[in-house]
Amino acid sequence: MPDISILTEADLRALVKLDLEAVDVVESAFRALASGEVIMPPILSMDIPAANGEVDVKTAYIPGFDGFAIKVSPGFFDNPKLGLPSLNGLMILFSAKTGLVEALLLDNGYLTDVRTAAAGAVAARHLAPESVTTAGVIGTGVQARLQIEAAHLVRPFERVLVWGRDAGNAKKCAADLAESLGIEARVETDPARLVGESQLVVTTTPSRAPVIRADWLHSGLHITAMGSDQPGKVEIDPAVFGRVDAYVPDRLSQCRTQGELRAAIEAGQVEVGTVFPELGEVIAGQAQGRKFASDITFADLTGTGAQDTAIATHAVALAVTAGAGSRIAS
Amino acid sequence: MPDISILTEADLRALVKLDLEAVDVVESAFRALASGEVIMPPILSMDIPAANGEVDVKTAYIPGFDGFAIKVSPGFFDNPKLGLPSLNGLMILFSAKTGLVEALLLDNGYLTDVRTAAAGAVAARHLAPESVTTAGVIGTGVQARLQIEAAHLVRPFERVLVWGRDAGNAKKCAADLAESLGIEARVETDPARLVGESQLVVTTTPSRAPVIRADWLHSGLHITAMGSDQPGKVEIDPAVFGRVDAYVPDRLSQCRTQGELRAAIEAGQVEVGTVFPELGEVIAGQAQGRKFASDITFADLTGTGAQDTAIATHAVALAVTAGAGSRIAS
Repeated sequence: MPDISILTEADLRALVKLDLEAVDVVESAFRALASGEVIMPPILSMDIPAANGEVDVKTAYIPGFDGFAIKVSPGFFDNPKLGLPSLNGLMILFSAKTGLVEALLLDNGYLTDVRTAAAGAVAARHLAPESVTTAGVIGTGVQARLQIEAAHLVRPFERVLVWGRDAGNAKKCAADLAESLGIEARVETDPARLVGESQLVVTTTPSRAPVIRADWLHSGLHITAMGSDQPGKVEIDPAVFGRVDAYVPDRLSQCRTQGELRAAIEAGQVEVGTVFPELGEVIAGQAQGRKFASDITFADLTGTGAQDTAIATHAVALAVTAGAGSRIAS
Repeated sequence: MPDISILTEADLRALVKLDLEAVDVVESAFRALASGEVIMPPILSMDIPAANGEVDVKTAYIPGFDGFAIKVSPGFFDNPKLGLPSLNGLMILFSAKTGLVEALLLDNGYLTDVRTAAAGAVAARHLAPESVTTAGVIGTGVQARLQIEAAHLVRPFERVLVWGRDAGNAKKCAADLAESLGIEARVETDPARLVGESQLVVTTTPSRAPVIRADWLHSGLHITAMGSDQPGKVEIDPAVFGRVDAYVPDRLSQCRTQGELRAAIEAGQVEVGTVFPELGEVIAGQAQGRKFASDITFADLTGTGAQDTAIATHAVALAVTAGAGSRIAS
């Protein structure tokens, strides 16, 4: 049987960049989702309360991709006390023709970071107004940085505003973005003013109460909310649903149970069973997202197995070209 | 972060034997299942019709085990045309405390073979009559051999009868068992006679129609059916349910959807919602399996994530002791 390729986090960080190529690969996965031919089972999820831990398994088969990924994402939230990161995990790429293991991607969550940010760029590309001069980000973690860097690939804004609960973290995040993008980046202490001054806002928090209120919205705004990925999390005031011109989930079925849509349904702002076109349908031209420059648009990203298959395939293709990684007899 | 241990199929075949130690480890997993403290989510399952393939993901957290396994089992049934095995896959062992990857077990299904056969031995140990002189096996594949070898560890019978659809395969299976166990082993062309002469019968087929009929049953018989692991498969005549003294599923919820119980419910032989004590409850003494030597007992094995966690933990412990496998920086 063929050898298995092993790629470590160091290999993958050297190979896979958050660039337009990664954005295009993730976009192709969303476009495939709209074709109805993607096979994406519900997420397998297991809580381990004894260790304050959880583990999720995602997968998807995308026609046209040579492989499919299975991603295992553990989150063990007492790890920082042990000097270890909370989030870890790996992806396994299988041949879509034979089911044989092709590659083990020991990324410790790095590829998830990249494909999540790339999805933000895809949403911005298809939903944000053509002209964005100021972007805002709510949150100050890894995704705050990566989402803004990804969005800048498709909407090269001149300025970014950062809001965070912790002033020091917000300052550090703004400094990092100023350096990585070479643009003006500053802390904004009032989230309402951040939204008011931005044409593109990304929320990146694990919040359990809304961080953006409906009365802050203004014409020509696009919001991407990517923080909510499980029941109980919410970043966007449910009243926002009644105020936007287009709400676009990454995967409707997932957003109903773990996205912003879940909270809006629970709050009675959205009827159970309401159908919204998905991001892939907007990309494929089967549905229209933004119609006018003055529209308000809202993308709800919960993260899909299709993105994992796309980024894992991309990573292995880059590794083959570069001759990177090690091999082991299967 | 700590290194990750990598064990190949060759490593694992050298380390992990189908012996009483493996049977005891798997038994401990079943006993833990009865405690109600095991966390075992439903199987993630994805069909890939374009490649005549499927992939299953199983996992379970067992209190008292240091790690939990996630097992990925692809089955791609056109592989033999390419000279490749249909069944493959791997297990990943994670720390139950930190969620960090501890070991990659590239077993191509070998550990599944062992833990599946070990479960058969556990069922025989707790349900078969004390005295078994003749065992019978329906089917001639890898599990036909391993199930009989495993059962022989706990019920050292003198003779084994083999029935298969293909006479040549049956002959080969009997010859292999004669050699591995050093006992009389012969083909029996009439499955009714095979059941009639045996005190312990194991069915190991992927059949979609019953291979054992209710009117073949006799007092003092134990049957383990391990072939059905998905909707549509069935090995045992549903009328058997009304004739046995104890029906014991490995996991009731799984057997309702993919075991022999599913077919019996569909046939109207068992009421929906009927509760049967599980194998773990019999092991733990919370329920009684066989009460009399003359009882007829019936174990329904669909395969559990708890067995995977048990065998993966066992394999890694043996590897540590032997200093086997290779390591890679995580």
